Amino acid sequence: MVYKTILKEESENFGKRPWVRLINSLSGYKSANLVATCDGIGKSNLAMISSCFHLGARPPLMGFVLRPHSSASPRHTLMNIEATGFLTINHVHDGIYRPSHQTSARYQRAENEFEKVGLTEAWKDFPAPFVEESRVQIGLKVVETIDVTHNDTKIIIAEIQKVFIAEDAIMDDGYVDLEALATVAVSGLDSYHRTQRLARLSYAKPNKTVQSIPLSGISEK
Amino acid sequence: MVYKTILKEESENFGKRPWVRLINSLSGYKSANLVATCDGIGKSNLAMISSCFHLGARPPLMGFVLRPHSSASPRHTLMNIEATGFLTINHVHDGIYRPSHQTSARYQRAENEFEKVGLTEAWKDFPAPFVEESRVQIGLKVVETIDVTHNDTKIIIAEIQKVFIAEDAIMDDGYVDLEALATVAVSGLDSYHRTQRLARLSYAKPNKTVQSIPLSGISEK
Repeated sequence: MVYKTILKEESENFGKRPWVRLINSLSGYKSANLVATCDGIGKSNLAMISSCFHLGARPPLMGFVLRPHSSASPRHTLMNIEATGFLTINHVHDGIYRPSHQTSARYQRAENEFEKVGLTEAWKDFPAPFVEESRVQIGLKVVETIDVTHNDTKIIIAEIQKVFIAEDAIMDDGYVDLEALATVAVSGLDSYHRTQRLARLSYAKPNKTVQSIPLSGISEK
Repeated sequence: MVYKTILKEESENFGKRPWVRLINSLSGYKSANLVATCDGIGKSNLAMISSCFHLGARPPLMGFVLRPHSSASPRHTLMNIEATGFLTINHVHDGIYRPSHQTSARYQRAENEFEKVGLTEAWKDFPAPFVEESRVQIGLKVVETIDVTHNDTKIIIAEIQKVFIAEDAIMDDGYVDLEALATVAVSGLDSYHRTQRLARLSYAKPNKTVQSIPLSGISEK
């Protein structure tokens, strides 16, 4: 395998868009989620986001990145989050990845991405809409907004309030079978992927080789 | 599809480990990386991490989460990062996901995970070791450490200094073909996945349906 060395000083050699694509690919596979919010009068916004990450289980927290000065949708998302303090995160599956990607177009503030791309708002006793088509729908409350000083982005930290999830996908030990739900992964700016499980692996311990475990998990010792 | 509703107040019903597995699965697919660091006298540490996220391309930044009070390896990672200010992030591929998972065992501070799991340290004119077997090796400098007040975790923000990457995987437009590299994705705490591309999609514009684009990308208009 021939390795190419790339130094940060070489970014100019790549051209602006290729550099963005290259760096965007380097973190590895990313989650594919739709963030749904509404403004102070209940008008909805929907934005594709690939930066959601798990932050902790007790309390149940997720984080994601918003770039205030890039595309139009995240800016609307940020305005809505600041207005209401609530949002939903909805998994993208292989049946909706194209309309989900389409939400990243620069729609006007008055336009509702749900309607524009053909996805369905679901209001379920929560201050932000869910995506009806999604098989994992998570309602969250913002608990912390962090300014990253180094590049003017914001990291939003939100606490999970309620989850609607396809029941069959929850294994006995709590693990959620994302493959059964056809949840997709993202790489770079624009590539979408299904997955194929290699294995679930046992809890690692020193001096013991990890073993494959059944999809359903193993009972706690 | 039958949906189950789960409220945050129900966490006690799940039991501690199942709740952790459930919440860990909710962000979607995660990146699979090995974080390599060394202490002040050059002794190496290696830790599997699934929370790396892309933060920006100019400057080229990545972030990841460290939990100071959970497993032993991240704690050592944090100590080393504080001592040296440097680290490397190395993609996990399907040939090394088992030893990579094994790094999460609670090895002692004096033990070197590289040796324990059978991966190879590569020193290449950088203040932290790379993982020789990895096909995307990224050297980074820490630029910001953020304390998340809500759950006592830390988000480390680091700037990419140099990248060693399998040359054939870099497409004409800068996109990196992670599938060609067999980079894996993670779901939950312990499930590893290969991927299968659905499509690369064109840049989304209002009033235009997104199109599939070739893997190699399309030339800039």
